[in-house]
Formats: sequence, C-alpha cells, structure tokens
Amino acid sequence: MDETDGPETGHGKRETVTAMIDLRSIDAFIDDHFNAHLERMRAFVRQPSISGEGVGMTEMADLVAQTIREIGGTSEIVPTSGWPVVYGELHEGRPQTLLLYGMYDVQPVAGEAWTVPPFGGEVIDFEDLGPCVVSRGATNQKGPLAGLLSALQSIRTVAGRLPVNVKFVVEGEEELGSRHLPEFIDRQRDRLSADGTYFAAFSQDRTGKPILWLGVKGIVFFEMTCRGGGWGGPATRGIHGSQGAWIASPVWRMLHAMATMAGPDERIRIDGIYDRVHAPSPEDEAVLAALAETFDPSVTLRSNDVRRFKYDLRGVELLRRYLFEPILNIDGIAGGHFGPGTKTLLPHEITAKMHVRLVPDMEPEDVREKIVAHLARIGCADFDVRFEEGYPWAKMSPSAPISQAMIRTFRSFGREPEVWPNIAGSAPFYLFSRVLQQPFTMGGLGHGGRAHSPNEYATVDGLRRFEKSVARFLYEFASSEPSSTVSSPQRADQSAGAGAP
Amino acid sequence: MDETDGPETGHGKRETVTAMIDLRSIDAFIDDHFNAHLERMRAFVRQPSISGEGVGMTEMADLVAQTIREIGGTSEIVPTSGWPVVYGELHEGRPQTLLLYGMYDVQPVAGEAWTVPPFGGEVIDFEDLGPCVVSRGATNQKGPLAGLLSALQSIRTVAGRLPVNVKFVVEGEEELGSRHLPEFIDRQRDRLSADGTYFAAFSQDRTGKPILWLGVKGIVFFEMTCRGGGWGGPATRGIHGSQGAWIASPVWRMLHAMATMAGPDERIRIDGIYDRVHAPSPEDEAVLAALAETFDPSVTLRSNDVRRFKYDLRGVELLRRYLFEPILNIDGIAGGHFGPGTKTLLPHEITAKMHVRLVPDMEPEDVREKIVAHLARIGCADFDVRFEEGYPWAKMSPSAPISQAMIRTFRSFGREPEVWPNIAGSAPFYLFSRVLQQPFTMGGLGHGGRAHSPNEYATVDGLRRFEKSVARFLYEFASSEPSSTVSSPQRADQSAGAGAP
Repeated sequence: MDETDGPETGHGKRETVTAMIDLRSIDAFIDDHFNAHLERMRAFVRQPSISGEGVGMTEMADLVAQTIREIGGTSEIVPTSGWPVVYGELHEGRPQTLLLYGMYDVQPVAGEAWTVPPFGGEVIDFEDLGPCVVSRGATNQKGPLAGLLSALQSIRTVAGRLPVNVKFVVEGEEELGSRHLPEFIDRQRDRLSADGTYFAAFSQDRTGKPILWLGVKGIVFFEMTCRGGGWGGPATRGIHGSQGAWIASPVWRMLHAMATMAGPDERIRIDGIYDRVHAPSPEDEAVLAALAETFDPSVTLRSNDVRRFKYDLRGVELLRRYLFEPILNIDGIAGGHFGPGTKTLLPHEITAKMHVRLVPDMEPEDVREKIVAHLARIGCADFDVRFEEGYPWAKMSPSAPISQAMIRTFRSFGREPEVWPNIAGSAPFYLFSRVLQQPFTMGGLGHGGRAHSPNEYATVDGLRRFEKSVARFLYEFASSEPSSTVSSPQRADQSAGAGAP
Repeated sequence: MDETDGPETGHGKRETVTAMIDLRSIDAFIDDHFNAHLERMRAFVRQPSISGEGVGMTEMADLVAQTIREIGGTSEIVPTSGWPVVYGELHEGRPQTLLLYGMYDVQPVAGEAWTVPPFGGEVIDFEDLGPCVVSRGATNQKGPLAGLLSALQSIRTVAGRLPVNVKFVVEGEEELGSRHLPEFIDRQRDRLSADGTYFAAFSQDRTGKPILWLGVKGIVFFEMTCRGGGWGGPATRGIHGSQGAWIASPVWRMLHAMATMAGPDERIRIDGIYDRVHAPSPEDEAVLAALAETFDPSVTLRSNDVRRFKYDLRGVELLRRYLFEPILNIDGIAGGHFGPGTKTLLPHEITAKMHVRLVPDMEPEDVREKIVAHLARIGCADFDVRFEEGYPWAKMSPSAPISQAMIRTFRSFGREPEVWPNIAGSAPFYLFSRVLQQPFTMGGLGHGGRAHSPNEYATVDGLRRFEKSVARFLYEFASSEPSSTVSSPQRADQSAGAGAP
C-alpha cells in the first residue's frame, strides 16, 4: 500500500470554499504529533470494554468523556437502562453542526485465538500490511474514534476552531444491537439537532482503495431455545444418553425446526419473509453497475480467508445478492456436552443465537412476527424465542450533499472512492436518518480488518491518513449548503430505498 | 422404601449350599461397621477422577489400589496407552474365581447445577429418599465399588476367606468408552481367566424393586466437525456475520447434514443401519412379556424428570422399542458464539458429539462404515468424523448359572427381581463374555440415580443392603456348578441374541 498523504486541490469537480492553507497546516500538525495520537489510540484499545460481558465499560466511558474534555469540549455520561451514552458538545459558533455518532464498546474475545494479547494494543508487523495495531477495537471502532478526537484537537490547535459545531453521541451498546440508543435519542432529542451525522471508520480496503458505503442493512437478533417439557424430553436437566431410546431429544427437535427456517442453499424459508424485499431502485442499479467495474472479489475472499462465495455469480449479480437480499445467520448454537471427552447425555435444552439482516423495505416488527408465525406453523410455538434488539436498514442517496462531501474528501487525496449502495453490516443509522431526520455518512481513509474476529487490526499509517481525511471532510461538509441537506433527509432515504421505509 | 435387610432362606427354589450362619454373621459385621464403610464410600466420591478432563485420575487409581491391599489383596497399577487399570488379586484357594470388573473414573460436572458441591461427598436428605450421598460417582460407580470392597473385607474378617478367588480389573476410562480396556485385556489375558465377571451396581429402582439386567447395548461414539474450506465458508476463523450474505455457513451445512441422519421422529435414516437389527428372540420375548407385568413406566418418567415418552406405546411394545432398537443420540453440539450478549458471527466450524447405541447384532465397524458412507452420499465426505471408541452389545441368558445366582440373591432378601433382557446403556461386557469367554452379571441391592446428571445420588441405607447382597451373591455364585458356566459363555451370548454376535 503506498498512499499519498497530502490533500490535492485539483481533483474535486468543484473547488472547496475552505482555505487550503488551514488544511496543510493541520496535516503538518498531525504528522508532528502523530506519536501522541497513536498512543491515544493504543490507550483506547488497551482499555477492555466488552458490553456483552460488562467488562471495563465504566472505565471506557470515562476515558472517552475525559478525552472530549481534553480537546476542549464538554462531556457527560448519560445513563440509560443499559450501558451509558457519552454525550459531548463543542460549540464553535459555526452555522452548521455535525453529530458525531460512535461507540465505545467492543466484541468479546473469549474462545478466539490471537497472536497477541487482545487488549494489549501492540504494534506489530502484520501479514503484508506493515506496522499495525493488532487489538480488539483497533478498527471497530476505537481506532477511528481516537483518530477522530485527535483530528478535532489538531484542527482546533492550528485553526483556533472547527469549521462546524460538533455533538458527540458515543454509545456503549453498539455490539449489543444499540438496545438503549432509541431510548437515549427519544429522551435527549431536544439537544441532538444537527445538520448531519458522521460515523468514523477506516474505509480503505487492503489494497488502499477507499470505499464509500451509502447505507447499512437492518438487523433482527433473536435467541431461540428448545427445552424438554410437556411435549416430552428431559424437563429440567440432562439425563443419561441411553434414555434417548424412548425419551425425545430437544436437540433433534431444534435441529429439525431450524432446518425448516432456511434451505440447504441457505435461502430463508420463513413464509412471507421476502414480501417486503424489493429489487434495487434504478439509482441503486446505477451504483451497482459502477461498483462492478472496480469491485475485486479476490480482496473480499482474501480479507475473510475464504476460498469461494456461496453463489456461482459474478459482478452485479453477485453484489446484488450480497447487498439486497436478507439472510438468516446462525451466530452460534450450543447444547449438551461439548467439553473434552465423551458424556453420553440426552440434553434438556439447546439454544441458538441467530439474526436476520434486513434490506429495503423489511421492518423489524414484521420480521419478528413472521418468525413467530413460522414456529407456530411447524408446531414449535413452545420454543422460547427472545428478540433482544434490532433496527431497520438506512440508506443515503449518492447525490445527497453529505455523500458528495465525503466523495470530494477522498478525491482530494487523489483517490476515487468505490461507492457501494450499502454495506452488508448493520448500524442504527435509522435513528439519525429516520428519527432525527439527519443525513448521514461514514468512512474515511485508513485501513483495518478482522472486526469481530481474532487479530482485529488497523494499520498505523492508516490512522494518520484517517485523521487528515477527517479534517478535510469537516471542511467539505461545512462548505455544503446546509439547506439542501437539512431539508431532505427523509427524501434522501427514500430515493435510495424503494417505497416507504 | 422399607426394605427387609436380613436374608431369608425360604425364597430360593433350591437351597444354597453355603452356610447361612456365615452370612448372618457377615450381615451383623456389616451393620456394626457400617459407619466406616460409609466413610470409605464418601472418601471415594470426594476424590475427583474425571477421565475426560484428566482430573484426579492418578490419585483415584492409587486410592483403589491401596484399598484392595487394605482388604488383604495384592494390587498394581497397570499402565495403558490411556489411563491405567488397577489390577488386583485375592487368592483364597477356592475352586472358582470371579473377576470383579469396575471403574474408577466419573463423568464431568462442568456446567451442571448441583445443590451440593459435586465432589463433597455430602450426606443430605434428598427428595423423598431419606439420607443420600449426593455426589458425582455416588451410584456410577464409586459407591458400589466402595461397597463391594467393604463387603469383601467383611466376609474375610468374619469367615476367614472368601467363597471364591477374586481378580480386580478397575479401569479409568469407562466414561471414555473403555478406549484402552481392549488393549489391557489383550496384553493381560493370561492372568484374567475366571469363571465369571461381576459388575457392582445399585440395581433397585426408587420404589425398592430390584432389577436384573441381562445385558447391555453396544455403543459407537463419534465427533463430527464441519469446517469452512475448499467448498466455501470461513476457512480459519469466525468472520463478521454480515458476510453470510455471500459466504456459506458451516453451521447451516452441518444442521442440514444432521437432519438427514435422523428424522423428526428421531428414527435413524442412515442407509442400512437397520440391516443387522433383529427382532427379539423367543427367549427375549418371554423376558419382555414377564417384565411388562411389573414394569411401571411412571417410575422411569419420574426418575428422569420427564413428562412423556416419545412413543405413544405401552407395555411390551414400549419396552421392545426401548431395548431392541438403535438410536442416534446427540450428546452435545457447539459452534460459533454462545456466551452472553450478541456477536454477529459467521462461525468457521461446528462440532457435534454423537453416539449410536447398538442392539443385536449390530457391530461397531459396520455402523462406522455406514455413517461414513451416508456422509459421502449427501456430499459431506469432507466432514471431520472421529470415531473415538466403541464396542458391541453383550447379553446373557436368564438361564445362565451366573444369572440364576443373582436371581437367587435377590430372592434371598425377599424380593423378586424384575428381569430385563438388557439395559439401554452400555458397558464393555463383550470383553468378558466374548473375548474372555466368561459369563457376566451385574447389580445388587441398593438404590442410586441421576448418573451423568447433576445431583447424582445413592441412598445411605442402600449401601448397607448392597454390601449384604454382594456377600450373598458370592456364596450363591460359589455354589453354582462351575462346569456349566465356564463351558458355555459363548452359547449363553448367542441364546440371548440372535445369530452370530
């Protein structure tokens, strides 16, 4: 990966209104203080903050709140029914305000095989990527969050103030499906008004190509348990395996029930689940067609250490299937004895953790109802199904001013971004686009990988590029016409989706 | 449960040749020294010995070997490729020799909810059973093993010597499918000759009814893993769950493969698996018919905390299905993330631990071949299938002299045993009946339950009854005609099975 660090002025189709002199000084400041910025990122990833296990959460929220104060803002830790939200503000007397949405929690590491301690924040030469921070949270999302804060600090030091006012909403439950973020948004709505929402991310792929994702899929998580009871099976405890000769197995019942929910081709077989799935809009198809020109499937396969896709498709057909179809994924399943050795056991329960990814115009409530109806239809209404959280998809139009500001940012570094209609992953951007009526974007220079996997990493050099790109984006966003972005978030949503969201 | 402790002389159809005075003195000795015997049992269960986890195995083997020496025998710890066998002898100058087969290992307790520490050896009032030792191994099989040793010690103290010579073969891998017992038997064959094999067990049910099981099912354990690889799926690590939109899931593939191995009714669907399953012989049918007269299904349901059987059958039909059909049981299954919280993960592997119970005349090798052939037929030849251990079924005729000795033992305590053609569980008795050509039996008075389950227990009073019944059995066995038992073990096996074993 050889990257051009300096912003270039000749690539944007329109000249930005901001003074280039500010940006070059800011870039120089970032270079001069990069060691301290890297240490800030390492300090962030060294503080464990596993929301699912309740590890280090208070400490991490404090660290984020304190860092916001360090760079000149105000911050507070706002309680929710779950982990708190770190809220902050930096009033700069600017006409426009950007809401910086982020997360301070990370995925668990239990059972994963790491080559370094997962919360060690170590810098090592990793694969063929050069020096990388290999640590949980390096790319998802503490690395970008730390870089964002360092970038803001650099702008303020060099230019005196930011080109926009900013508000921080950094939640501690992103990895739990943002369970209590709707509650926070609802309660704090009065002070969350802004002209747009930005989510920091390292969005270059491992070849250096920057990606702009215009949206996210929605998600419905659920945990499904089959237990012995009135229907048969051991009611309260696992029993001797030989009893399976005349006592029913909750495990066999569960497996057969699950096998009715998706076929051997993994296509979902829950009645009506595809009713609200629409073909991509003409605008999406145009984005897909352009994307197929530059999309390199081998990078995806390599990044995920996978030999082949599950469809024998290429180009637009493969991408359309990936981005515009729902899936029913099994995150995990466990029942009975799975330690070392043998134990002849007839287990009394088995649990699967699953999720559905929602594409336009699927809605969580409708998906939940269809799952429950399916289980009732196959005679499994007694299964214990817990829907823990979930939210719908969200999308922006590529022509939205905030999307264009991000595209101009990438171009200013001499890189033409690869624009994706959405990412296959999920984030609760609907809260900003649909509930708060704010256009949103995400990304930035920098590269990381293996999110939710052992050896999660981000390149050291990418952090530096990311900080410069964030500074640039703030000025590009400030130069957008606020009226055109603020007035049409809902329209932007609709133009990229299809029909009513 | 109100039990008559003293042996009665009028119940046997033939008078035993042994002196009743010896037995009454022995019973009195057992009563007088019962506290010490109970402490021996509690010491046995307090010593963890989880073969599957390698916990406390050396210490437990030492404890057994030392106890054999305490009661006057010789003992040694014989290494195998796995956990050692405790071998011991007690030469009494008697014409007949009984081989005492036992086990010093127990099942794991990880993940089980106990009301007392699982290796505490505590005596508590348990359910409606009165004082019980509630501890791992209380009934399977350290409780009976300790009782057997105390009984032998009592006989020797009172009568000077046992009515038979005994040899001990106490293995440490019964819960691992007796992996290395064949190796031991093969190597030590020269010194294992005996006139019969006995396995100590508390075989009264919770109502006090004594059970005589004439045999065991065989077993084939296997562990089956589906991993991502050349066919697709994540090859080396779990990846972000959103990737399931175009990358195949080893978990879905595994579940669909497993669903082809047994139907929703749990009947095995592996081609040819029933080819060698034979209808019960006329002798078995006669045993079944007698059994159905006294068999109380509600006791089974209650003991296992189960509401209903999986078949809507009764009496002989239900028993025949239970005892004379194979099952494919899932002991456990695990893949992906199953800790607290959510983790959107596409797992790279999933493993199921399964076993088949073998009835006459299924053979392990044949079953293994059919499982492998089935997986190949459904396109899953790449699954990693590990057959760790296994052995065939074994059965004795109810008319065999050793069976009759046990029946007379129960009757001498005023109890008519309920005779079962076999137990649905498994034990490597084929090594004695088929390889060493020794008739075998198992059981004794006493009651325990919840083997392989939390709160495994044995009643305190049952231990006392067990010891007395063992003493009686040794004299009953000694009074059998050795020629009739030694010459026809293979015939006994065949008469209860069907065709060649």
